[in-house]
Amino acid sequence: MISDYSQRLIVQEVAPRDGLQIEPMWVATQDKIALIDQLSLAGFSRIEAGSFVSPRAVPALRDGEQVFGGIVRQPGVTYVALIPNLKGAQRALAAKADELNLVLSASQSHNLANTRMSREQSLAGFAEVVELARGTSVSLNGTVATTFGCPFEGHIDEKVVMGLVDAYQRLGLQGVTLADTTGMANPRQVYGLVRRVLEQLPADALTLHFHNTRGLGLSNVLAAYEAGARRFDASLGGLGGCPFAPGASGNICTEDLVNLCEEMGIPTGIDLPRLLELSRTLPALLGHEMPGQVAKAGRNRDLHRLPPGLV
Amino acid sequence: MISDYSQRLIVQEVAPRDGLQIEPMWVATQDKIALIDQLSLAGFSRIEAGSFVSPRAVPALRDGEQVFGGIVRQPGVTYVALIPNLKGAQRALAAKADELNLVLSASQSHNLANTRMSREQSLAGFAEVVELARGTSVSLNGTVATTFGCPFEGHIDEKVVMGLVDAYQRLGLQGVTLADTTGMANPRQVYGLVRRVLEQLPADALTLHFHNTRGLGLSNVLAAYEAGARRFDASLGGLGGCPFAPGASGNICTEDLVNLCEEMGIPTGIDLPRLLELSRTLPALLGHEMPGQVAKAGRNRDLHRLPPGLV
Repeated sequence: MISDYSQRLIVQEVAPRDGLQIEPMWVATQDKIALIDQLSLAGFSRIEAGSFVSPRAVPALRDGEQVFGGIVRQPGVTYVALIPNLKGAQRALAAKADELNLVLSASQSHNLANTRMSREQSLAGFAEVVELARGTSVSLNGTVATTFGCPFEGHIDEKVVMGLVDAYQRLGLQGVTLADTTGMANPRQVYGLVRRVLEQLPADALTLHFHNTRGLGLSNVLAAYEAGARRFDASLGGLGGCPFAPGASGNICTEDLVNLCEEMGIPTGIDLPRLLELSRTLPALLGHEMPGQVAKAGRNRDLHRLPPGLV
Repeated sequence: MISDYSQRLIVQEVAPRDGLQIEPMWVATQDKIALIDQLSLAGFSRIEAGSFVSPRAVPALRDGEQVFGGIVRQPGVTYVALIPNLKGAQRALAAKADELNLVLSASQSHNLANTRMSREQSLAGFAEVVELARGTSVSLNGTVATTFGCPFEGHIDEKVVMGLVDAYQRLGLQGVTLADTTGMANPRQVYGLVRRVLEQLPADALTLHFHNTRGLGLSNVLAAYEAGARRFDASLGGLGGCPFAPGASGNICTEDLVNLCEEMGIPTGIDLPRLLELSRTLPALLGHEMPGQVAKAGRNRDLHRLPPGLV
């Protein structure tokens, strides 16, 4: 444990993208826009607002253009779009996304399953995206999915991850996200890899993206923070999921992370009461309970009354 | 983060007590016995097998005598009974519990709500239990409930906790458990308090008992382990709950904790595959899903097949 918790932890909200993409129930475009507009008022500096992938692959987010066109953009908030290839980048630029999040997998087989391309083909496509974005104000971030393990291949060699971080740097991308796509990371592994990556990248260019599939999401955040990482993806209500783990949790839950930070004295700039209020609207919107805990349990400061008959 | 994870982490199973006590559905005595007998074969050195409290207060565990009388005791396993007072201790001794776990709350109002006694009255009763146990082979452990926060009072002063640890030591109890009864602890707080308590107690006399009410259970375990703690309560499937947080998680989940340890290389001596198999029987026994994650998601090594059509 470190003793300095004064460094700000930057929370990037991904519920509108990683959260909603797996929901079986169609969420109306207006409801997506309303959700993002509410999130924009909660203190986030970055919101992943949608993706531009094949509507056949991710029908839940097929209205990306309308969503980006309908939201009220708040100053100081970067609205990110996930894209897998040049076509997605063209759509995202036309929709005026502030940042494109390119994604490929450290695992060859996962990349194939996710994008029907080899890693090499993905990287070649990203070089075209870099050309497309040149001269525009849009920034580029590269995600390495399955950094900490692959549901098909298991262990991922750190050298593969470092090679992709390198490739992203050579492409000139401004940021890199290491993603634990199916929740296989553990804090010891996270600490070691983050230390290693931060020898190559400044902390403000590195984002960690954890899933809580095996209950280790917040433990991994703390390990990464202790190793010097400062930027983390999280999803309102813990929205999101894993196609390989029915019933398991998805992304780490934004309000649970912000609550952890508040309890430990780590500044985030996020308005937790507003977030809790918003999270508590999700079950009605999506037709099921959320995995997030603090929205159910309340904050520590939400005290209870003594049972009747006691003084 | 520390770099030495070679020290064994001792997991104490509490599902038969803290897990079952809040279940609304009656679990037949034979099912309780079968559960404990299965747990006895999974590598635990300690199992909290029941409690001897007023059957009106905790009707779910009113069959403590029959449970303790029916289980097959395995060599090397200590079978613990939770008791609130002398009467409970008498019943537990008659039932041949190996260890009595005395409990009071750091918070005066929580102790009143839980036991209808003041802390001082609880301690006076414990002195009588010490007399009762003198000359027998039974060992005594004292739990400080609401150590890290109280649902009625909020923050608990560390001085109050240290005073109760002191009182337990003066009574001559062999062990002390610090319990986060309603999941209000955070890792920074845990690290600090454990360091402080370990100046007064050897590590093998200290147990930490965390709930996952706000999603911080395993993070708190790691913080305590880093501070030198080695013994932890956990509950199969994450059974247990909090009367003040409907829908929130209960105790930290045994198999999620053991999985974390395995992934980080921390030895526990627990048979994880057996535990997962047993945990997966709980939904049928209790009529609802469990909060534990690994039983749903599988271990990292449980790989998945590539979707059809990909090579």
